[in-house]
Amino acid sequence: METFFNPPSVAIVGATEKPGSLPGIILKNIMDMGFKGRIYPVNPKYQNVFGLRCFPSLLDIPDAVALTVIAIPAQFVVDTMKQQAQKKIQYSIIISAGFREMGAEGTEMEEKIKKISIENNIRILGPNCLGILDNYTNFTTSFLPWERVSKPQKGSLSILSQSGAFAIALLDLATQEGLGIAKMVNYGNRMDIGESTLLPFLADDVHTKVIAIYMESVDNGRKFLEVAKECSRKKPIVALKVGKVAAGIAAAKSHTGAIAGRYEIYRAAFLKSGIIETNGLEEFIDGVKALSMQNPPKGNRILIVTNGGGFGVIVADHCSENGIELPPPSDHLKEKLRSKFSRFYVVNNPVDLTGSACDEDYYNALKTCMVESNEYDAAIIIPLMAPKGMTEKVVALISDIMKLSGKPAVICTVGGTFTIKVKQLFEACNFPVYPSPERSVKAMATLLKRKLLQNGHPLT
Amino acid sequence: METFFNPPSVAIVGATEKPGSLPGIILKNIMDMGFKGRIYPVNPKYQNVFGLRCFPSLLDIPDAVALTVIAIPAQFVVDTMKQQAQKKIQYSIIISAGFREMGAEGTEMEEKIKKISIENNIRILGPNCLGILDNYTNFTTSFLPWERVSKPQKGSLSILSQSGAFAIALLDLATQEGLGIAKMVNYGNRMDIGESTLLPFLADDVHTKVIAIYMESVDNGRKFLEVAKECSRKKPIVALKVGKVAAGIAAAKSHTGAIAGRYEIYRAAFLKSGIIETNGLEEFIDGVKALSMQNPPKGNRILIVTNGGGFGVIVADHCSENGIELPPPSDHLKEKLRSKFSRFYVVNNPVDLTGSACDEDYYNALKTCMVESNEYDAAIIIPLMAPKGMTEKVVALISDIMKLSGKPAVICTVGGTFTIKVKQLFEACNFPVYPSPERSVKAMATLLKRKLLQNGHPLT
Repeated sequence: METFFNPPSVAIVGATEKPGSLPGIILKNIMDMGFKGRIYPVNPKYQNVFGLRCFPSLLDIPDAVALTVIAIPAQFVVDTMKQQAQKKIQYSIIISAGFREMGAEGTEMEEKIKKISIENNIRILGPNCLGILDNYTNFTTSFLPWERVSKPQKGSLSILSQSGAFAIALLDLATQEGLGIAKMVNYGNRMDIGESTLLPFLADDVHTKVIAIYMESVDNGRKFLEVAKECSRKKPIVALKVGKVAAGIAAAKSHTGAIAGRYEIYRAAFLKSGIIETNGLEEFIDGVKALSMQNPPKGNRILIVTNGGGFGVIVADHCSENGIELPPPSDHLKEKLRSKFSRFYVVNNPVDLTGSACDEDYYNALKTCMVESNEYDAAIIIPLMAPKGMTEKVVALISDIMKLSGKPAVICTVGGTFTIKVKQLFEACNFPVYPSPERSVKAMATLLKRKLLQNGHPLT
Repeated sequence: METFFNPPSVAIVGATEKPGSLPGIILKNIMDMGFKGRIYPVNPKYQNVFGLRCFPSLLDIPDAVALTVIAIPAQFVVDTMKQQAQKKIQYSIIISAGFREMGAEGTEMEEKIKKISIENNIRILGPNCLGILDNYTNFTTSFLPWERVSKPQKGSLSILSQSGAFAIALLDLATQEGLGIAKMVNYGNRMDIGESTLLPFLADDVHTKVIAIYMESVDNGRKFLEVAKECSRKKPIVALKVGKVAAGIAAAKSHTGAIAGRYEIYRAAFLKSGIIETNGLEEFIDGVKALSMQNPPKGNRILIVTNGGGFGVIVADHCSENGIELPPPSDHLKEKLRSKFSRFYVVNNPVDLTGSACDEDYYNALKTCMVESNEYDAAIIIPLMAPKGMTEKVVALISDIMKLSGKPAVICTVGGTFTIKVKQLFEACNFPVYPSPERSVKAMATLLKRKLLQNGHPLT
């Protein structure tokens, strides 16, 4: 697998400087990323492409080549594969579309490629995909220009996605949410390499802490179950399964030729293998974000602290819906809190610091409840930034005291420009921030699910 | 009611230039908004406040006064009310907190004020509230500085909110979502004026097209049901009821002293009176946004158009979950579409224009399906902006052709900086944009609910 992510040498078939050409953009993206391996443009039309020597065909390259990247029209791919077999190149990423997802003719071409690859022991990623982005080896086969798609920062999240558009959207979302990326793999039609091969590789990848999977179908059900079970013991896996119902299943078939299969079977498999399933794009990215930034809480005793009473009420409602427990503080703890705060403040769970709250009130509430007491395992903190008493300093105060407590927290805050600035400051301190009460609650629920799994409990 | 929103003259009790003082910020906000009525600062300490003549007490004001705004500490409010009664001022907005929500002592003070108001026929908004923002009369009693809270643009959405923090958050969200505001009312402890009085007023307000209500409890169940039924015939009402389950009900009691009551009763009342209920902050603002920007579709035949197949699949899944029908195009319509597009494009529902899509493809797909054919009532459009073929021009093309069709559409798009720019362009054309598939589907479901109500069908 390593060769797909860190090839010592790569041939870009069809490379050109012509604007808008896929192989051209891919070559440019690889060079822009600062990839250190050898790069061989292949195109009979040119002597040089972007300053690199260009070869008429794969067979003309004098050195050994580890990997080809093929992004030429579908009807020319079979011939390229034949050359690749002759040159004994063992790995190929086929970006080109126009195969199985296009019906009979495309399926036939795909079968021919498959035959060549099996006979010559060539491993294939794709076709109909974006391929790879590795943020540590600086290798990519993405054909999307960086001025349209955020170049993600280095981090610990790795993404497996059957859909290219979805993979790209996740890169953008990750950047917006302050999340760093380790690896992204989009395998499209998944002729050969799929989830079952990639998952064990990511399980052992030192840079990957959390794995996010978008799936329409799975390559090999039995093997996937096995490797997912093994992998989820080490690292959280969060999945978004789409093509669940008739309309979606039909759409998935048109999209990647995937036979989505019965959703109930997937659901059972996820539960059995310790995969955390999410419903919809936001729950998916929110869960991934929580798991990337915070550890699971030791137990299910959650404290809400807010300066917006209404938000406390909504969070409390959603906690109940999501099986999160909100025990009230003990009389002793209430006394301690009362001694620190104005009599207007509501000393309960939620702790309501009201519109009069200042930064230090958050510090004091969290110190009293999360550090000096052992009544709570984690906190949902809702600092609303509209009142004058609230400033950017609240970020360092909350971050310091929560880190001292050793307990996890998720943040919810809603507001305009100033709030967005505060969100980014929290995320720079590794606290996941959510723009609605319900999303912060679901993120906490995801952390709790991970804890159950770590304790060996099956999900239900 | 008019006097609360457009008082010919208003006295600000406790007005001062001292930074951070509530009456001071309120006075400044009123002046900043450009309010045209007469303003009387009241404070025995000063001769002038912000250049206006200041009076030692309400009784010293030589003219008649229509409304008082009271934002002084709770223990001084009773005396002020006595003066107000003597001066025969008929309306009062009491911003001050520290009443019923604080237990027995506060309740006692609140009862005293209530007694004075009943005996002297004084109508009261509050206490424990932000009061009013009217974007057409430029009157406000908000005590939050505009550098922290977005000053909303003029528009057609009016907000009723028991929670102040929530009302403020909605103002910020509305600005982010490109939504204009007509009126905002936050009534906190709701000693006198509440939903049942405000709703008929908004029903007749020329500037209000859509009404959003945040409620922990209701002032008068029977009357509310009656006025809501009447109002929802004219204008959509979207509600977020919080304090639904034990934890939330307890939190609501601490917050505004509200007895949240049994949620099932509320649910039944909403259904009966034609109020569209939403679950969570995002569904609430998303539904309000859809209803403010688009008309309900004539029927439930929805077309999905996308250039990201995976997104089409997720939207299709969520459509099924939300009762939205996705009929495939007729053979005739499929033929027409096929004649216009590359053979790679998927001509079905979703129409998948693939990563090769350009702006004009959207125009052609929508023209063929929404203008030249009568097979669909509305569209969920998912333009992903990562591919080079997609530019800002897609906004005008989609907007023009959908306006020509006379049918509503909601937009889903996910991405980075460029996508956010495109979102704002769509919203300037009155197309609601959502950052996830599931939210765009729920927004369309809200439009469909409104159509059912207009047709006289009860919601279920």
